Amino acid sequence: MTQETVNALVSPEGSLEILSSHEVNRLKDKSEGGLYSLFRQCALAVMNIGADIDDCKDLLEIHADFDIRLVPQPRGLKLELINAPAQAFVDGQMLRGIREHLFSVLRDIIYAHSVLATTPGLRRDDPETVTNLIFHILRNARVMQAGRHPDLVVCWGGHSISREEYVYSKEVGHELGLRGLSICTGCGPGAMKGPMKGATIGHAKQRVKNGRYIGITEPGIIGAEAPNPIVNELVIMPDIEKRLEAFVRTGHGIIVFPGGVGTAEEILYLLGVLLHPENRDLPFPIVFTGLPENAEYFEMIDQFIRNALGDEATARYQIIIDDPVKVAQAMKHGMEEVQAFRRTNQDAYYFNWMLKIDPVFQLPFEPTHASMRNLALHRNQAPHLVAANLRKAFSGIVAGNVKAQGIKQVQEHGPFEIAGDPVLLNPLEDLLTAFVQQNRMKLPGAAYKPSYRIVNEPTEVVK
Amino acid sequence: MTQETVNALVSPEGSLEILSSHEVNRLKDKSEGGLYSLFRQCALAVMNIGADIDDCKDLLEIHADFDIRLVPQPRGLKLELINAPAQAFVDGQMLRGIREHLFSVLRDIIYAHSVLATTPGLRRDDPETVTNLIFHILRNARVMQAGRHPDLVVCWGGHSISREEYVYSKEVGHELGLRGLSICTGCGPGAMKGPMKGATIGHAKQRVKNGRYIGITEPGIIGAEAPNPIVNELVIMPDIEKRLEAFVRTGHGIIVFPGGVGTAEEILYLLGVLLHPENRDLPFPIVFTGLPENAEYFEMIDQFIRNALGDEATARYQIIIDDPVKVAQAMKHGMEEVQAFRRTNQDAYYFNWMLKIDPVFQLPFEPTHASMRNLALHRNQAPHLVAANLRKAFSGIVAGNVKAQGIKQVQEHGPFEIAGDPVLLNPLEDLLTAFVQQNRMKLPGAAYKPSYRIVNEPTEVVK
Amino acid sequence: MTQETVNALVSPEGSLEILSSHEVNRLKDKSEGGLYSLFRQCALAVMNIGADIDDCKDLLEIHADFDIRLVPQPRGLKLELINAPAQAFVDGQMLRGIREHLFSVLRDIIYAHSVLATTPGLRRDDPETVTNLIFHILRNARVMQAGRHPDLVVCWGGHSISREEYVYSKEVGHELGLRGLSICTGCGPGAMKGPMKGATIGHAKQRVKNGRYIGITEPGIIGAEAPNPIVNELVIMPDIEKRLEAFVRTGHGIIVFPGGVGTAEEILYLLGVLLHPENRDLPFPIVFTGLPENAEYFEMIDQFIRNALGDEATARYQIIIDDPVKVAQAMKHGMEEVQAFRRTNQDAYYFNWMLKIDPVFQLPFEPTHASMRNLALHRNQAPHLVAANLRKAFSGIVAGNVKAQGIKQVQEHGPFEIAGDPVLLNPLEDLLTAFVQQNRMKLPGAAYKPSYRIVNEPTEVVK
Amino acid sequence: MTQETVNALVSPEGSLEILSSHEVNRLKDKSEGGLYSLFRQCALAVMNIGADIDDCKDLLEIHADFDIRLVPQPRGLKLELINAPAQAFVDGQMLRGIREHLFSVLRDIIYAHSVLATTPGLRRDDPETVTNLIFHILRNARVMQAGRHPDLVVCWGGHSISREEYVYSKEVGHELGLRGLSICTGCGPGAMKGPMKGATIGHAKQRVKNGRYIGITEPGIIGAEAPNPIVNELVIMPDIEKRLEAFVRTGHGIIVFPGGVGTAEEILYLLGVLLHPENRDLPFPIVFTGLPENAEYFEMIDQFIRNALGDEATARYQIIIDDPVKVAQAMKHGMEEVQAFRRTNQDAYYFNWMLKIDPVFQLPFEPTHASMRNLALHRNQAPHLVAANLRKAFSGIVAGNVKAQGIKQVQEHGPFEIAGDPVLLNPLEDLLTAFVQQNRMKLPGAAYKPSYRIVNEPTEVVK
Repeated sequence: MTQETVNALVSPEGSLEILSSHEVNRLKDKSEGGLYSLFRQCALAVMNIGADIDDCKDLLEIHADFDIRLVPQPRGLKLELINAPAQAFVDGQMLRGIREHLFSVLRDIIYAHSVLATTPGLRRDDPETVTNLIFHILRNARVMQAGRHPDLVVCWGGHSISREEYVYSKEVGHELGLRGLSICTGCGPGAMKGPMKGATIGHAKQRVKNGRYIGITEPGIIGAEAPNPIVNELVIMPDIEKRLEAFVRTGHGIIVFPGGVGTAEEILYLLGVLLHPENRDLPFPIVFTGLPENAEYFEMIDQFIRNALGDEATARYQIIIDDPVKVAQAMKHGMEEVQAFRRTNQDAYYFNWMLKIDPVFQLPFEPTHASMRNLALHRNQAPHLVAANLRKAFSGIVAGNVKAQGIKQVQEHGPFEIAGDPVLLNPLEDLLTAFVQQNRMKLPGAAYKPSYRIVNEPTEVVK
Repeated sequence: MTQETVNALVSPEGSLEILSSHEVNRLKDKSEGGLYSLFRQCALAVMNIGADIDDCKDLLEIHADFDIRLVPQPRGLKLELINAPAQAFVDGQMLRGIREHLFSVLRDIIYAHSVLATTPGLRRDDPETVTNLIFHILRNARVMQAGRHPDLVVCWGGHSISREEYVYSKEVGHELGLRGLSICTGCGPGAMKGPMKGATIGHAKQRVKNGRYIGITEPGIIGAEAPNPIVNELVIMPDIEKRLEAFVRTGHGIIVFPGGVGTAEEILYLLGVLLHPENRDLPFPIVFTGLPENAEYFEMIDQFIRNALGDEATARYQIIIDDPVKVAQAMKHGMEEVQAFRRTNQDAYYFNWMLKIDPVFQLPFEPTHASMRNLALHRNQAPHLVAANLRKAFSGIVAGNVKAQGIKQVQEHGPFEIAGDPVLLNPLEDLLTAFVQQNRMKLPGAAYKPSYRIVNEPTEVVK
Repeated sequence: MTQETVNALVSPEGSLEILSSHEVNRLKDKSEGGLYSLFRQCALAVMNIGADIDDCKDLLEIHADFDIRLVPQPRGLKLELINAPAQAFVDGQMLRGIREHLFSVLRDIIYAHSVLATTPGLRRDDPETVTNLIFHILRNARVMQAGRHPDLVVCWGGHSISREEYVYSKEVGHELGLRGLSICTGCGPGAMKGPMKGATIGHAKQRVKNGRYIGITEPGIIGAEAPNPIVNELVIMPDIEKRLEAFVRTGHGIIVFPGGVGTAEEILYLLGVLLHPENRDLPFPIVFTGLPENAEYFEMIDQFIRNALGDEATARYQIIIDDPVKVAQAMKHGMEEVQAFRRTNQDAYYFNWMLKIDPVFQLPFEPTHASMRNLALHRNQAPHLVAANLRKAFSGIVAGNVKAQGIKQVQEHGPFEIAGDPVLLNPLEDLLTAFVQQNRMKLPGAAYKPSYRIVNEPTEVVK
Repeated sequence: MTQETVNALVSPEGSLEILSSHEVNRLKDKSEGGLYSLFRQCALAVMNIGADIDDCKDLLEIHADFDIRLVPQPRGLKLELINAPAQAFVDGQMLRGIREHLFSVLRDIIYAHSVLATTPGLRRDDPETVTNLIFHILRNARVMQAGRHPDLVVCWGGHSISREEYVYSKEVGHELGLRGLSICTGCGPGAMKGPMKGATIGHAKQRVKNGRYIGITEPGIIGAEAPNPIVNELVIMPDIEKRLEAFVRTGHGIIVFPGGVGTAEEILYLLGVLLHPENRDLPFPIVFTGLPENAEYFEMIDQFIRNALGDEATARYQIIIDDPVKVAQAMKHGMEEVQAFRRTNQDAYYFNWMLKIDPVFQLPFEPTHASMRNLALHRNQAPHLVAANLRKAFSGIVAGNVKAQGIKQVQEHGPFEIAGDPVLLNPLEDLLTAFVQQNRMKLPGAAYKPSYRIVNEPTEVVK
């Protein structure tokens, strides 16, 4: 498979092109500790728009002859690109959106992976330090705007969805844009692109010049899901957990479109965080929405949550079917509650300091047969811990389905065993089975061979 | 038929809210010479977005209880709206795009119909004066931007087109937007909205903040074709002929999408103007484009033009089928030629002073049985005059089909007789017959009863 | 006397460079009705900064070989200058401030002397039309800013003042600038430059980026008093009376520094307008201010006003000696009253529509022996008419002192006779005598030969 | 001595108000390692404009009851000030310039003293690391603007100068401003304020909206020399040496006005750096300028330099007496050379990476009797080392004259002994004697008792 490529010298946009000699040297450093290979990989990823590859390994192989070099200039830095993917260019000129993404990559790699990574006291794993680190990365990326009212809607959902679902997500975005709301997503295609496109038209009609289309990604995912060029603020967080925390600390509300098992994992993360007792009174508008044909999907999710986490969890979200105006109004109304709450509590509009995130959600979970087998899957614990453990279970299934490391383990040792109380696991099994039937486990084309096995272990109820 | 309505007090955007007491009095004046009723009618029209009405008379009848009042304020003027159409509002707030349109209406009515209308020496019908008047109206509307390079693509085509044709016009707009080009249309729906929407997304990807979506209309048409809210510069010209001249003097290139018989009339206007001997060397990029299913339509038009006006006319345009990138590149390339030509000739980028427009295209044509019968439809005259007369013939057919005055005449006295040389008229008859068969004469729903009758009168060839 | 000159091609700033062919032709027209000679004269005047000439006739003679030409360009208009005064340039580049002034001249001459001058109904002498004309000229010059709060302080006073008086006017300007207030003057040197310079520093300290330094002049005066380059909004009104009306309609308060007999005339204009019964409740902050050595001057003026116009007139102003902070605070406080009043009355902040100006102050007064002799100088009339007639008397003395026409009449027929009731004229004579003694009548260098003669004509008091 | 004080809650300007909880805690920390007391001291200093105190100790004593507190807010941070100096306020509102300075202090203290101070590898004393640290601080303060051409003129000279010298420095600034150049100083009064004020007026005349008035200071000096409020970019460097390096790396040229012995020290620093062999071809425009009465001062300096450092050193600067236009033209011309050189060498316009600074100029010098006695004051070394050692000698004299530590040492142990080769020391003694006679050693009021003693130690010439 050959790809058309282009050589180019591109100028930055914005002010991030001013690097010290120290930083330039680190970016050029091709040794182990150097940043060159990370920079090259992420740069390649942001240029890979509209391509069919959704695997970082393929991307790097196809573009093995790609190179990127820093060229200091009197007015700042330029980037020289050798054999860059042609789709990032229009008539030989790089798309300005892509150019901005390139320099966002540069900025975040330098900041998060160079300056901050070596700061003592910031690598420790205590929750406050992790949160401060996330704050510093976002501030350095200018994501936080002091004078702005709450207006940021995070949109989650599948990146591979039907044409009708895509059009629906655009319509929701259009209604959000008409109400002056901005969009934040994981910045790939599908449900992550539709709302931004719709909001762009809505903003044009309302003459909103400072509409935000924020994409938050991380090095492991950017290769598979290139940011679409509408994204006008791109942030590369160091890892998945910090990316999820960035969503819930900067977003003021969340809309969930239908997705695969990964979306279910995200829902459990979100509800798990919100179920922490200290978050009880914290307003956080959440809407699950889709077309009429998605109603069943959400009903299934809803029942699963109700059984596993209880009514307090289901009270956290609304399900709105086929009504973009109502979705947008719910978000607009939710923003007002968020604003009133933060004003009362003197908390920042631009960063949700008050949101309590249990360390169980901050620390990376690495799925292995042992770690999967040992998950505490019963209801004899606080609901937010039930959610945390279920999230890990989902995370392991995702890994067993699609991630290199997970697939290998399953091939060698058979499916992961997920063991726990049948009260929790029977509905889980039903849910997973339904996902299999609805082809939500993997991309179509092959019969799905489960990466998991449910093991019932009834738990004594602790009084 | 009832419509939801809203009462509101709206503030202006921009600086046009500063009116003198003289101007306020004229706008409030409900007497014959006053501007109130014109202002009310146009204001109603711009709020009527997305409605099914495409007839100004219906609009006024449905909203008979609509009223608009000027409310002077310390910081400028506000408008009070009574029983305004609800679709102009989002959750009770007027769309900012519509608000701008309201004040554009105010601006142009005051300027063109008040100050200028009473200026001696500017109402005369000599071509130079007409052109200066158009210039002054456009300048007052800030349409001319001194520092800007040629980038304005006029898009013509039907306002009632198929979903596929609409999507195609969006794609063309997207490619134009990616190349930094701006859009100018007649500002209604269909082929006038699609390119703007596409360009909005293209501009977002290229971070073009000053993209222009110019709509040029006139009081007689605005009621039927409400400007879509993406239009960010709305101009109301005094009449159709000045509107057409505004298109060709401010636009730097023209794209024609498929349309009805009206579109054929516009094509003849354009080619007729360009065929004037003094315009021979003037670059003016023109592309006819559509989906594969539109190829036949353009071929028919092409043959008709070749027969009637000769190869010089057909050399003026390209026909590009199903290739938005190629259309956009042709326009981009054409802009460069326009720029080079104007620089060489020291002519303004923002107004095509050098374009020679024969008075025959500036003076209004009023179709009657007599004026239609007397059109000089033969080839014993300069090609640009052939075009001018054919345009009048089309114009009369349009009137006989859809305009109140024309319909009435045809009902009373039978079809207009179009007489002339068979060399010209036989192809015309074929073209019209094809339009009838393709349902391009009127909106679907009734059998078409021709408003014209072809009369062959062979002409002696003058040597 | 030779002057250094420069040839240059200058580009405009702003958008006024977009002229129609009609306008270009009028500006090039060197015939009687054409605008070329007026344009050339004003253009020369604005470049004549810092020169010792204060007479328009001298200016034109010294620069007899100066020429100015319009050069159309693809991106707008340029001006070609032949033998232009060198002081308008820094190292061969025209000062940008001067460049703006050149194009302001162009704008106002075209607007006021071309378009508007030929509009029927706007040349008539009825007060409302005059006021609307002034409004239209100011609006076209973008002097009126809809969203702005009252902040415009008009500074009047002599253009030829001592170094100490100049420094004092700078200090007053500094304190005004620190309070965010903007400055409007007649735009020459001396008391017209000092406050602007001081305000510039004050604005810099307060980071006021949109500080306004408005100069309002007219063709007869601009030659003698070139606008200083700090002026960032220059307006050329058609004549003196319209210029005075522009001051009082756009300014929100007035500070009077010491000046010559011309300043006394301005004071009488201002108080005369304000004494109109309909203006009784209209707030209009006025401060007379100067150094300790100016205290006597203002006391003399104060007594003269009290005798002639009564306590209502003296209640209109404060006299503040040697206290820039107090002057600025008085203005700031006055602005608040103006704002409250206009909000209550729904009158515009940017134009004082409610101020009633008697036609006696709008119509030009031409001093002749007859017109001077016939002035009604007694107190048997409304105080605002006393003021109007006294103003005319002062105006005649100014003309007899320094204007070509007036000097000639006095040379031929002797001093103007000023006749009236001794109750009014005795104090006038004392005032004039004091002015003579203080060398305020003419520039130093020659003994002053009075251009007036007081004639007592006791008036019967009408009951 | 009592001072008027004010309590206030002030909002920030710009984006620096967004602090992490980590940073807020450090700023509030009143313990040894905390930043509270440094922040409080610098905050007090920037509010102390126009006061007579020029000693940081006095300042802190007089305002012992001053307190500053951080108040988190939904839209960002506010500062609460208790008993703040009244001169920072106009009618109860803090001057916006001062407000910006307060938040610049906050920004730089957090960045330089918190984040960076704890970064490993950045505190080491190797030259490259010091330079990178300076770069990072300046970048964080947004001093470096990528797109800008060289235009930054550093002005050095005394902060306590005569009225005439002050007016002269304003005139120089005015001519610099007319040529679009920006100003950088040590940000106190006198020769550090005059050029900024003059440039402000020059920029106003040229409509330069982005004129820069950069002040670079450090915690030890800010108390004695409060930044004047015109300074629109304030940077607090960690210490004197880094401040000096910041001047020569960001400035594109330097003007030296007359000053005391401290100015002589700065001159030697500058020439010493430039004399490094690697800097031989580096363009760096330098002008010494003053009034006719300053000619002798500069002649004396010139001769001293010629003797000590040779003709290569004197070739580095021009002396221009009483000619602001020529000074500004020399700088403008020098900027062009700097620009051409950097473009050729692909070095940044915004930071002089190529300038080689010997570590001897980067490491702090602490004057003691031993360190002063051991200075290598002879010409048997590279000229840039002669300059370095002479600079230290001057530095010690300054300390012995005015700094607490130095005065104490001299009181206890007698004058510092400055020993070296008479070829170098005799002219030094003459220079110092002349400074004593011209009252340039200390503020007037007391007889000067020398803090130094010259000891001749003829050096063998090393072949």
